[in-house]
Amino acid sequence: MKSESRRNIRLDLSYDGTDFQGWQIQKVGRSVQGEMEKALSALHAGRKVNLTGSGRTDSGVHATAQVANFYSENSSIPAEKFRDALNAHLPRDIRILESREVPLKFHSRFDARVRVYKYYILNAPAGAAHYRNFCYLTRERLSMPLLNDLARPLTGTHDFTSFSAARDQNESKVRLIYSARFLREGPFIVFRIAGNAFLWKMVRTMVGTLLDQASKGGTPGDMVDILHGKDRKLAGPSAPSRGLFLHKVLYESETNIY
Amino acid sequence: MKSESRRNIRLDLSYDGTDFQGWQIQKVGRSVQGEMEKALSALHAGRKVNLTGSGRTDSGVHATAQVANFYSENSSIPAEKFRDALNAHLPRDIRILESREVPLKFHSRFDARVRVYKYYILNAPAGAAHYRNFCYLTRERLSMPLLNDLARPLTGTHDFTSFSAARDQNESKVRLIYSARFLREGPFIVFRIAGNAFLWKMVRTMVGTLLDQASKGGTPGDMVDILHGKDRKLAGPSAPSRGLFLHKVLYESETNIY
Repeated sequence: MKSESRRNIRLDLSYDGTDFQGWQIQKVGRSVQGEMEKALSALHAGRKVNLTGSGRTDSGVHATAQVANFYSENSSIPAEKFRDALNAHLPRDIRILESREVPLKFHSRFDARVRVYKYYILNAPAGAAHYRNFCYLTRERLSMPLLNDLARPLTGTHDFTSFSAARDQNESKVRLIYSARFLREGPFIVFRIAGNAFLWKMVRTMVGTLLDQASKGGTPGDMVDILHGKDRKLAGPSAPSRGLFLHKVLYESETNIY
Repeated sequence: MKSESRRNIRLDLSYDGTDFQGWQIQKVGRSVQGEMEKALSALHAGRKVNLTGSGRTDSGVHATAQVANFYSENSSIPAEKFRDALNAHLPRDIRILESREVPLKFHSRFDARVRVYKYYILNAPAGAAHYRNFCYLTRERLSMPLLNDLARPLTGTHDFTSFSAARDQNESKVRLIYSARFLREGPFIVFRIAGNAFLWKMVRTMVGTLLDQASKGGTPGDMVDILHGKDRKLAGPSAPSRGLFLHKVLYESETNIY
């Protein structure tokens, strides 16, 4: 056994959220964290291994690159080999993209500086069958310039109570949004948002509200009113979870590249 | 009832082949044609409606835009409304993208001039979870220029016996390939091939052989030898079906745009 018998391992992982209750372990149903901890336990002689993620994702929400970390004790698996070792134990709807050793003090949640989400919209009367679990389909004709005008007031430091689920238990609803804009990606219209952190259902409620306002001729001023009203009832419906991807999470030295 | 009680309806449709035995109706298992004919029957007072497709696809093979046609009798559904009407009856892994009336003599199989397939390869040690059913993952480092050199001899009119399944029952194994090349599409390396028609497993065997030859230092001359040998045993393994998409089918006046 090597002298450094306790190592902090960072994992970059992707999952298809379709068949999960979400990231966090639940009493009932499959969770990403639950499947991950099962696989980690199998690689550590059956011992319980706790996995910390950069944040939770809801049922049906996907991750292109979630970040998590765990402490590996008394294992001889090289840090970068945890990728293949875990993938061999994991169900196919979770894939480890990278594994590496990080300083013992690294914490995937507390040290995360920027989270980037993407919400995929297909603006068509019908979409390719293989996209069905990965985007929201709307046939209402969308205007990119209008959507970007409506999204502009969301940037900056604000109290986002209007866009958080009533049951969100965060004490402060103030978050810093670095950018929020619509762009085209292949056949999709994508809402891309980068912020220091997000409230429960915040991105989906923003998307639902932006589409709702675009549909009924709302203005950027209406978005400001919804934001300042600090009342969830002012916002529109939450867009479905299947369109949402946790795109990436950035730490310290990486924050110049989001 | 309108006087034109018999109409020929063309459908452009997409499907996720993962959970199908393939296009064609089988004694056992789900088929795209079978699910389609069930939905068509439901829209025609329970009468049997035969659907013709431009060609079959195998189990696990997807379609971005397959083309099919059927004769609608004594129905008042406007041609372009069959899209939504069928989508309401179909499982979510089949989506009708467009429906329209075409001349009575239009035949989706016999009139097809060009079929275009795409095979998606992810060249990485691990891929995003939501791509798992839609590409072939290989960690062996691929060279695009080499792959394109190897693919070049496939273009033209040839006897493709070496690339067809032993059980293929076509009398002639001669087909005309208009183009066959590798290109990049997002994170993928894509093999795109356009031809007048294809033998059973032909594209997948080409991809498997090209990857095999690239891996063992083969040359374009080796590809020529395999082709001229007219023996399936000379070619490599067939690549898995999940990476293959019937990308589009072209008819008459459309053939200038492939």
